[in-house]
Amino acid sequence: MKNSLIVQKYGGSSVANIDRIKNVARRIARYRNKGYRLVVVLSALGDTTDELLKLARRITSAPSEREIDMLISTGEQVSVSLLAMTLQRMAIGAISFTGGQVGIITDYSHTKARIIDVSADRIKKELRKDRVVVVAGFQGINPDHEITTLGRGGSDITAVALAKTLGAGICEIYTDVEGVYTADPRVVTDARKLSYVSYEEMLELASLGAQVMQARSIEIAKKFSIPLHIRSSFNNKTGTIISKEVKAMEEALISGVTVNKKEAKVTICDAPDKPGIAAVIFKEIAAKDINVDMIIQNVSRTGYTDLSFTVSVRELNRARQVMSDIVGKIGAKGVTYNRDIAKVSIVGVGMKTHSGVAAKVFETLASKGINIDMISTSEIKISCVINKKHADHAVRAIHRAFGLDRVRRA
Amino acid sequence: MKNSLIVQKYGGSSVANIDRIKNVARRIARYRNKGYRLVVVLSALGDTTDELLKLARRITSAPSEREIDMLISTGEQVSVSLLAMTLQRMAIGAISFTGGQVGIITDYSHTKARIIDVSADRIKKELRKDRVVVVAGFQGINPDHEITTLGRGGSDITAVALAKTLGAGICEIYTDVEGVYTADPRVVTDARKLSYVSYEEMLELASLGAQVMQARSIEIAKKFSIPLHIRSSFNNKTGTIISKEVKAMEEALISGVTVNKKEAKVTICDAPDKPGIAAVIFKEIAAKDINVDMIIQNVSRTGYTDLSFTVSVRELNRARQVMSDIVGKIGAKGVTYNRDIAKVSIVGVGMKTHSGVAAKVFETLASKGINIDMISTSEIKISCVINKKHADHAVRAIHRAFGLDRVRRA
Repeated sequence: MKNSLIVQKYGGSSVANIDRIKNVARRIARYRNKGYRLVVVLSALGDTTDELLKLARRITSAPSEREIDMLISTGEQVSVSLLAMTLQRMAIGAISFTGGQVGIITDYSHTKARIIDVSADRIKKELRKDRVVVVAGFQGINPDHEITTLGRGGSDITAVALAKTLGAGICEIYTDVEGVYTADPRVVTDARKLSYVSYEEMLELASLGAQVMQARSIEIAKKFSIPLHIRSSFNNKTGTIISKEVKAMEEALISGVTVNKKEAKVTICDAPDKPGIAAVIFKEIAAKDINVDMIIQNVSRTGYTDLSFTVSVRELNRARQVMSDIVGKIGAKGVTYNRDIAKVSIVGVGMKTHSGVAAKVFETLASKGINIDMISTSEIKISCVINKKHADHAVRAIHRAFGLDRVRRA
Repeated sequence: MKNSLIVQKYGGSSVANIDRIKNVARRIARYRNKGYRLVVVLSALGDTTDELLKLARRITSAPSEREIDMLISTGEQVSVSLLAMTLQRMAIGAISFTGGQVGIITDYSHTKARIIDVSADRIKKELRKDRVVVVAGFQGINPDHEITTLGRGGSDITAVALAKTLGAGICEIYTDVEGVYTADPRVVTDARKLSYVSYEEMLELASLGAQVMQARSIEIAKKFSIPLHIRSSFNNKTGTIISKEVKAMEEALISGVTVNKKEAKVTICDAPDKPGIAAVIFKEIAAKDINVDMIIQNVSRTGYTDLSFTVSVRELNRARQVMSDIVGKIGAKGVTYNRDIAKVSIVGVGMKTHSGVAAKVFETLASKGINIDMISTSEIKISCVINKKHADHAVRAIHRAFGLDRVRRA
């Protein structure tokens, strides 16, 4: 379905300085010449947000989140006004807005607010005047008119929410990479850019450590079936389209291989194997707001069991504190910690209809003499925890085993 | 009349960095300990506004004023959030607001908007919670929710307008000088700080080049009889109180001597001395938006007259363009320009009731061999245009002649 309205979002690296802003303006000019109406969402210039947070940290290690939002929301306001001026200089009608001005209404949280409503009447009015509407990403206001921000990946969320409200044909996400790859090109030299990937696969890839987009914005796009196009702002190449699963996609078994080296494994040794033990453990962990990724309980021997789980390395110290209490409470023998792990995962909607994918992964690792420590699967994902020193080798082997270096995905 | 609410305004140099913001927070803490309720208005950190304008000028020499306001209003938003965090860190309840959030409503102009309404309900609500309310100066929103700024001295205007709306007992203006002086201390070493000065005198001093405050904020304070206290944020000395003319003030003839070296004189030579000539000239000048300061028409000789006026040096080139047209149109002989002038002025409400002030000024200049080129007077001011090279000498002589180095003004 042809729709002449496009929402474009440019990340911080794409608007890091005046020259790059001019570059963005030239791209917008080309779209305008082709007859498209445009709503453009911007992040703050380069590292502005981090610089502002540094200022705040010079005052206090625990600034109020409400004041943090007042502070960091200025970053996007600067970028949108500068882009609007640049477009006007090129004789393109343009107007900039804060999130609040275009009616992006959030809940009452600060620094990670959720959008509850987007009115966008103001945007529609300006589009009717044939203007490019430039909107500050990452921010909104709550019903009390307090400024809020949406957290990591917030500008993507703004873009997707506006695309939904305005009925845009596509939401383009401009960044400093050319799209979504079958593996990290720094690890796998023959990694290929995917032409298409489904929302579900992209969600798995995002949660497995592919840093292109945060899961929240992909979830919104999926919910409202808004096609996303992830592409580079530094060239005109087509990037990766993220959309609903289509027939052509199913022909390719696997869309990508990822690796996450930022998890640690916690193992509780010889815990009594009786009902409710896991509940006790993970209730206490959750109470400390620690996110657990994989959980594996080994087979019971003689009434005792080993139970392992992984947490982010960042949260390991907090997990340690909880664990020492729990071990005594449940009568386990002890607890061990391992930071030398890596989680290698493959993602692909093709798995749903093709058997043997897991077996092929295990065989591939075995053929390279790599031991598998933990395994976890979902409908479209298989993850294996292995020794960190084998991680890159494992990714390359799996990537080749599934022919990701060869198959051109439709 | 005792009133426990004080509005304080801190200029850019008073909040130029985190250390100075902490310094401001400590002063606020002392006022809180004395039981005052406080509304604090801030400018942007140091040179932030100029830095943002530089960014804009890298894009275009004529940016849209609406987008300029979007851009530069971020400066104050940064300062207020940082001060609120600092106060909170000291366990002082505080909350920051943009101009729009506290209901500072302006007209539709940009970069020099005028306040048309201040609701301040939000401020009152926070004051009832015993919080220090920190408000971004220099900015408001127009009835369409567009961000506007108030122009030079805008933060002072915000402070005075809030003092009026909230019924504050006094409005303190913190800056990098200790108050209003009888003359520029860089020129006149024995210049004294005035303890009191009337609104009328301060208006004359401001328009004559004393850079402490802009005329607009003084006018608002005068209209609503809000006492202003101009003082330094770097020490605890009492500064200068600006208030209604009181009896004690009248005893001092003169409050200050100023000099303005940034004007140029334009003389139209041998214009026909007939009705309507001046009207033609100044209508054309006004049409080009050039501000004329003094106008002197010399006595007519033989049906022809010389007419001189002064304009800001910045506007001299534009004035030249207009003048060349006009000279031909009115049949004058020619036009001359002189940049080597200075305007020396004395200001004082005492002049109203004391005669001989003008004579004493002229005598003083004559005794130093300084020729007077143009003279202009108002009820409380006498200005003389002289050769620029004599300017500082003239200021010192007049300062001494009126005993400003000795008399302690009540």
